[in-house]
Amino acid sequence: MGARRGRQIVVRDYADDAIGPEHFEMVVAEVRGLEEGEVLVRNWWTSVDPGMRLRLRPDPPAGYFPQFKLGEPLDGVLTVGEVIESRAEGFSPGDVVWHPFGWRELSIVAADVNYMNGVARLQVLDMDGVEPQHYLGALGSMGLTAYAGLSMVGALSGGETVWVSAAAGAVGSLAVQFALRSGNRVVASAGSSAKVAWLESLGATAFNWRSTSVAEGLAQAAPEGIDVYFDNVGGGHLEAALAALRPGGRVALCGSVSEYESAPMGPANLFQATAKELTLRGFRGSLHLDLLPEMQSEVRSMVKDGSLVYEESIYDGLERAPEAMSDMLAGRSMGKVLVRI
Amino acid sequence: MGARRGRQIVVRDYADDAIGPEHFEMVVAEVRGLEEGEVLVRNWWTSVDPGMRLRLRPDPPAGYFPQFKLGEPLDGVLTVGEVIESRAEGFSPGDVVWHPFGWRELSIVAADVNYMNGVARLQVLDMDGVEPQHYLGALGSMGLTAYAGLSMVGALSGGETVWVSAAAGAVGSLAVQFALRSGNRVVASAGSSAKVAWLESLGATAFNWRSTSVAEGLAQAAPEGIDVYFDNVGGGHLEAALAALRPGGRVALCGSVSEYESAPMGPANLFQATAKELTLRGFRGSLHLDLLPEMQSEVRSMVKDGSLVYEESIYDGLERAPEAMSDMLAGRSMGKVLVRI
Repeated sequence: MGARRGRQIVVRDYADDAIGPEHFEMVVAEVRGLEEGEVLVRNWWTSVDPGMRLRLRPDPPAGYFPQFKLGEPLDGVLTVGEVIESRAEGFSPGDVVWHPFGWRELSIVAADVNYMNGVARLQVLDMDGVEPQHYLGALGSMGLTAYAGLSMVGALSGGETVWVSAAAGAVGSLAVQFALRSGNRVVASAGSSAKVAWLESLGATAFNWRSTSVAEGLAQAAPEGIDVYFDNVGGGHLEAALAALRPGGRVALCGSVSEYESAPMGPANLFQATAKELTLRGFRGSLHLDLLPEMQSEVRSMVKDGSLVYEESIYDGLERAPEAMSDMLAGRSMGKVLVRI
Repeated sequence: MGARRGRQIVVRDYADDAIGPEHFEMVVAEVRGLEEGEVLVRNWWTSVDPGMRLRLRPDPPAGYFPQFKLGEPLDGVLTVGEVIESRAEGFSPGDVVWHPFGWRELSIVAADVNYMNGVARLQVLDMDGVEPQHYLGALGSMGLTAYAGLSMVGALSGGETVWVSAAAGAVGSLAVQFALRSGNRVVASAGSSAKVAWLESLGATAFNWRSTSVAEGLAQAAPEGIDVYFDNVGGGHLEAALAALRPGGRVALCGSVSEYESAPMGPANLFQATAKELTLRGFRGSLHLDLLPEMQSEVRSMVKDGSLVYEESIYDGLERAPEAMSDMLAGRSMGKVLVRI
């Protein structure tokens, strides 16, 4: 039989400012034969996450996932597909799996390697009552990130005021729902009136930071201040939170998407942390795999009782992945951004 | 008997940049008669602390101790003296007390008021084996701040690498000694070679940030990185810490003296907190009065076994208090800065 070929996107160039399709290139790669312990996956869905943007900077932050390599496909991007050939025990053609070799049609994956802190180890997915792409969102690293962040700052006990920024995004919208379900009052911010309306429908007090200032929107939504801030944005959003947090307040530092395409600035009012005894906790969902079963069980019960509200922005065709990334970073997408291959 | 009179320093003006004697004025005030529940104290020692500088800014940070009032003496400054007249039960002439009405010769203090979160409630001091001015330093809020900060970031268990900045200062030098005594390796930074030599003599690995960059000094002192950073400086020091902290590292945000006389900048690399799951905890010693007995007992045992190394920069004469403050902010003092009235 002839060698298989599959399309894949490789990195052409890094970018300091706005990234776009010109920084990528579509190539057709020949897929080698499998070695013992490997499977070949035909990918169905691949992920587009804000954190990937940092890996496309010329100066990616130290200590984070490594920079994507120039001229190579993007390794470390969660992807769901079907096993079409297997030389690994426990995996058979037809199995639906996740793995971290995304932005390509065909992936060879070794079964026994713990990629990306283990979060992306090749795994057969339980498809009972859920769709495969949910594993790139609510049942996967997005859900884990939202859940772990709230857990680490003690916001799953309820009874507090929790602000979530970029709240119409994949992680944000799950954080909003987990926080509400735990009995908190939730303030949610986003960058369009459509997103705000959607967030209000979830039960949050929402505001559009583009139509007012962040500080004003927050002051109106939570005149008494906030107890917890789940930060997906950084920059001016974080400054507004430090000003609005009540004594003893906590910040879950999840991401700072406002600063992924510019020179980051720290919060000028960080002294508020001293003045009010605030705690800022940086975290990465992928380092809290221990919470995955608990989070997945929570999400499954939300799926079953119909309470999970789950938005997806789907881009059809692998060639649209760069466009999906641009749209997400510019705030033009809602919920989980997915590419259907 | 004629009315008593006492000299006191009042605030003439706030300052954005360097503060100096021109921002204060010495006046002679008549002291009214005591009301029931009050005592009159002849002050011996009054304190000069970095945090006071924020209260002399035109725009003091919200949530912190209030701005000092123009034209009035400085309330909220720890002071030690002798009761010379009492109309309060439990206080008699000759008692050595602390209270928060400093920078003046004579203070009227109500006995039953919890000034400054309670840390500065009028109290008779146990003079066994210690000097009165120790209560403005190691046995008072300086010791409490150092101890509470280390405690809050879990640095009293030992076995880690702890960096203390402004380490030759009142809080810093106590944090260094508490951290060493708990079995940590301690890195200490200061701004002169004399200070560095003194810190080395305490058992720390010290560097002079003025003669190298902070990042270079830190890298040489702790090539493997650090676990805890006790921040008295902010600015570039905090950025260097975020870069050098190992995964799971913690920061005790005590103060940011590098930014008290300029527009503060946040740390541009705060994303390191997310990348490495760092925790930044703001704190104020005065909110941890529960730790005061434990800290004082620790300090007393250090005094008794001769292990406490305690430097004081003493300015003789109330009129020298503004000069003492300038010197401290410019890094020209060592250890606890005190004014002997």
